Amino acid sequence: LVESWSFLDTAESDFRPLVVIELAKGTKEETIEWLTKRIADKKADGGAQLLIKPLVTENGVENIYLVGASHLRLLLGAETVGLVKECSDNSMRTFTYSSRKTFKHFADDNHNFLTMAECQYIIKHELENLRAKNEKMIPGYPQAKLYPGKSIVRRLLTNGILVQIFPLHDREELKKLSHSWYGRVKVGYQPLDDIRCYFGETIALYFGFLEYFTFALIPMAVIGIPYYVFAWEDYDKYVMFATFNLLWSTVILEVWKRICAILTYRWGTLLMKRQFEEPRPGFHGVLGINPVTGREEPVYSSIKRQLRIYLVSLPFVCLCLYFSLYVMMIYFDLEQWALDYHQENESNFSSLMLYVPSIIYAVVIEIMNRIYRYAAEFLTSWENHRLESSYQNHLILKVLVFNFLNCFASLFYIAFVLFDMKLLRQSLATLLITSQILNQLAESLFPYWLQKRYNRRMKKRMCSKKTGTDLSLAEQITMEKEMGTYLGTFDDYLELFLQFGYVSLFSCVYPLAAVFAVLNNITEIYSDALKMCRVYKRPFAEPTANIGVWQLAFETMSVISVVTNCILIGMSPQVDALFPDSKMDLVLTVALVEHLLLAIKFIMAFVIPDKPRDIQTKLDKLEFESLEALKQQVRPFQMQIHFFLIHH
Amino acid sequence: LVESWSFLDTAESDFRPLVVIELAKGTKEETIEWLTKRIADKKADGGAQLLIKPLVTENGVENIYLVGASHLRLLLGAETVGLVKECSDNSMRTFTYSSRKTFKHFADDNHNFLTMAECQYIIKHELENLRAKNEKMIPGYPQAKLYPGKSIVRRLLTNGILVQIFPLHDREELKKLSHSWYGRVKVGYQPLDDIRCYFGETIALYFGFLEYFTFALIPMAVIGIPYYVFAWEDYDKYVMFATFNLLWSTVILEVWKRICAILTYRWGTLLMKRQFEEPRPGFHGVLGINPVTGREEPVYSSIKRQLRIYLVSLPFVCLCLYFSLYVMMIYFDLEQWALDYHQENESNFSSLMLYVPSIIYAVVIEIMNRIYRYAAEFLTSWENHRLESSYQNHLILKVLVFNFLNCFASLFYIAFVLFDMKLLRQSLATLLITSQILNQLAESLFPYWLQKRYNRRMKKRMCSKKTGTDLSLAEQITMEKEMGTYLGTFDDYLELFLQFGYVSLFSCVYPLAAVFAVLNNITEIYSDALKMCRVYKRPFAEPTANIGVWQLAFETMSVISVVTNCILIGMSPQVDALFPDSKMDLVLTVALVEHLLLAIKFIMAFVIPDKPRDIQTKLDKLEFESLEALKQQVRPFQMQIHFFLIHH
Repeated sequence: LVESWSFLDTAESDFRPLVVIELAKGTKEETIEWLTKRIADKKADGGAQLLIKPLVTENGVENIYLVGASHLRLLLGAETVGLVKECSDNSMRTFTYSSRKTFKHFADDNHNFLTMAECQYIIKHELENLRAKNEKMIPGYPQAKLYPGKSIVRRLLTNGILVQIFPLHDREELKKLSHSWYGRVKVGYQPLDDIRCYFGETIALYFGFLEYFTFALIPMAVIGIPYYVFAWEDYDKYVMFATFNLLWSTVILEVWKRICAILTYRWGTLLMKRQFEEPRPGFHGVLGINPVTGREEPVYSSIKRQLRIYLVSLPFVCLCLYFSLYVMMIYFDLEQWALDYHQENESNFSSLMLYVPSIIYAVVIEIMNRIYRYAAEFLTSWENHRLESSYQNHLILKVLVFNFLNCFASLFYIAFVLFDMKLLRQSLATLLITSQILNQLAESLFPYWLQKRYNRRMKKRMCSKKTGTDLSLAEQITMEKEMGTYLGTFDDYLELFLQFGYVSLFSCVYPLAAVFAVLNNITEIYSDALKMCRVYKRPFAEPTANIGVWQLAFETMSVISVVTNCILIGMSPQVDALFPDSKMDLVLTVALVEHLLLAIKFIMAFVIPDKPRDIQTKLDKLEFESLEALKQQVRPFQMQIHFFLIHH
Repeated sequence: LVESWSFLDTAESDFRPLVVIELAKGTKEETIEWLTKRIADKKADGGAQLLIKPLVTENGVENIYLVGASHLRLLLGAETVGLVKECSDNSMRTFTYSSRKTFKHFADDNHNFLTMAECQYIIKHELENLRAKNEKMIPGYPQAKLYPGKSIVRRLLTNGILVQIFPLHDREELKKLSHSWYGRVKVGYQPLDDIRCYFGETIALYFGFLEYFTFALIPMAVIGIPYYVFAWEDYDKYVMFATFNLLWSTVILEVWKRICAILTYRWGTLLMKRQFEEPRPGFHGVLGINPVTGREEPVYSSIKRQLRIYLVSLPFVCLCLYFSLYVMMIYFDLEQWALDYHQENESNFSSLMLYVPSIIYAVVIEIMNRIYRYAAEFLTSWENHRLESSYQNHLILKVLVFNFLNCFASLFYIAFVLFDMKLLRQSLATLLITSQILNQLAESLFPYWLQKRYNRRMKKRMCSKKTGTDLSLAEQITMEKEMGTYLGTFDDYLELFLQFGYVSLFSCVYPLAAVFAVLNNITEIYSDALKMCRVYKRPFAEPTANIGVWQLAFETMSVISVVTNCILIGMSPQVDALFPDSKMDLVLTVALVEHLLLAIKFIMAFVIPDKPRDIQTKLDKLEFESLEALKQQVRPFQMQIHFFLIHH
């Protein structure tokens, strides 16, 4: 009786639940019947040919469905999504069912050939590509219109009938992973391959970047420490430090591309063909003919979108930027006030008070960033982009510009208008440390605490009914479905981006920034890992070959930092003393050096190959083989023609 | 009897000679026999399955062979090289023999479906891909080693057994083309599509770029004229002009990418898949295993090549640069001497003498550029690059750096060391005009005159033997094989690149430069057209999708010109007067403006899409179709599997 929690434990032993579908409470019977039928239908009949079963709990059927698939179905799905796996001869190849025997670790009874994350990705792909045939609407919901080719799951999601789809955690795997990841205090690399197997390439690549970036900052930090210890206030030492920083930041960004290529080659995503992009879920428009696919689907005029971008979004962003500058001016008034206060009644308290405006400002900046983030998301989704990638690019651009100004405007103002190096150092330190502390709290510890409390309550409620040992599947699902949803790596990269700004833009006045960044990143790895494993629902794996637009963002930041550091060095008294006769010569020299450094940067970026030689050779080899294969395809046909030629 | 000039007129009416192979005098019989057999052999036997016939003239067999192919063979070859043609529904598709009926203008008896240039390209491709099977050497030449897979034609070329391979002109087509191209004085566009049909995409794209560039310079020239007519010496007007120039040069380079996409889409090369690159003819090394192809072929250590580049080529280039600067200093001594002379005995002659040093220097620059060009070619080929593309990139880099310094160093010196705007203007004018005149002479008129003289002599010799009407095929070949070989568009682009430098680098001191550039380019179109049609052998068509590394070179030049123009403007007395109090403010303002302009440039380059929307849609459509086709291929197999699943 206790075992009737879930029929799965008894009913069918080879049904392995992978993905959970939660329907809204009160969804009509006919809708559920239609949906489950479509999901289970044969591929030939336009279905997804997956296994779907309702979750039966003590309280009866709860509108939660479990989706799985047979081993063979998953292998065919792997071919459809174009997974790349390692062959027996250690080369990476696109998986096809017919060539399955050539792949490493493949055996007909080896159900671990595909990782669980891959299986879940395949199921997600199949569900999203389950398309309407000749239904005009979702049965039971006449207002939810369908047209041939429309993704059924997306329509259900936008209409609120489908609450969420999420992949299940694998308790055992998760335990193993979290133990090797953050369970013990150890010096060493993260288990990136295991992370990739469990969470997919996008998340593994973020952690890879975080780790690489931390290691790359260590030389900067090590060189920065003596500046603090020996209180080196000589600017010529700062010049050395800044020059090192500039070249170093170029090198690390170029080297990352190579490391990224190594990682994604090993994971197979470097070779994966880009899939055709479907419209994003939120996209709406009048039904028309898509010029690319020739299919009937919603069409939205590009001119209308441009108008929305340039007449609404752009002015709004400018207004926000203006507001951010206005807040900055208030901060400087506060700063002045604190200084006056300190000079009037000098005490320990008053010298502490000197830091208060910076801290308040740092908190306000964080709050503004977060509010703006929502506004930017709203605006970008209102701009109605057809593709997810275009939506993401517009969102990232909006957020980056604002965050950059919001975080660094005051520092620029202090450096290049007030020329107050002491205040710059103090502000930089306060902003950096405060924002790091806030981020760590807001991002992981606070949600973790909430989650923990909720879990405890849940467990208590359940335990009151049964004496529990391990959690059953139903309990696990009930718990996981209430967990927060991980919204992607955007915020994590943004945090690193701003940190990179703090470290590189004004590195020559505050060498200790790198030390704080390294310390923060080490704890960040642990708190982010905790966040992924314990706080959020498991996210769907997303294959990716690089960190995308963030590479460009980091490179832009490093170009800007060349400019700022050159100016800072030019303003230093030491350099000033080298040109006693003419200020002009000083400025011209600084400008010359700046242009030279920029030229060197661009040449270095051009000269360092983006992929290591051995990866490039492997890619060339694959390309050569595919060209040869094409020729082989042509040849039998040609021979036939030649035969025809000879005999006529 | 007179008609026995060529067996072709009588022997076979459907053999159309397309390509001429000239063997060295005294080539052994067995070699010729083997080569012709290999060329004529069936594809299945490893041959090229082309038609080959010796040219029989009055003097007997002359070691000249004509290569042609049947219509069907050419169609199959078009599939092999991956030609893209227009379909009946106006879309562009990769040609395959099996889908031939869907292509526009295709008919089994329409022998003009492929243009003559395309046929010649196919034959060249097939000849170059005629590979050794199990021959250890070329029969009759034991020193000419072969190994399985080695291109026979390339080995014959490097061993001097094969003198040259060149495509035949089509007298009739050429007459039509030259009439519509440069035959009549007319205002209008060049017949780019006809040029492309006759000479191929690389050359048509050069003429397209030349034409586009000329049109793009017209606004600059028009705005520049009043500066000369009204003798506007006001620097504020120059500021306006320079600002316009900077933005304009960015826009025209971005717009060219779009126009290039339109042209190459129409010509099909935008869609052509990159072929696997074979080693270039001059490449040599020890026989080893190529890691990419797994085939036995010469391998040359990359470290050795790097050593050659960094230990020999780089120092040599630096030495040449130093020498060029040394010559420049001599020029300034001469200039000083001419000035002294003019001041001592002031006369018409002495004021003319003022221009003499510049003219001499311009001539010397041209001579040095040409000598250096040979040295660069020798060095780059000595570096032993495996791929033609890598060879080209290294050559272009070497030549560009030297030519840039050689041509512009004196101008930079005058502008930023001597601060002599009057001399700068004079030097710029003299250098620009002299180099244009020299180029026109050296490039087309002189070879044309030589060719004309030779032709006359040839005709006279032939006429002495027979009363000729039109030229027979044999006569045509005898004449064409003596014509110069067109060495590619490198020199033509280089000339435009330097011209762009003269126009944009110092545009704010000499607005008339654009006028001269426009005038030169109009005559350049005519003289280049003449050169292509009358002076040189017909070149093989080369499919290409863009102007390659030249786009980058022009963009770099336009970035440098932002810097120089900002400095020039900053140095002008007018701008100086705006900052009466502090020179510092002036320099800082100029630096700020420069950085802003550079930022705007990069943002513009980023924002303007590289391809027009309709071309992009068409490309997306093709990609979508190919993805769909892949799915269709998978589906029948999947269904079979599902059937299997159901019944077991």
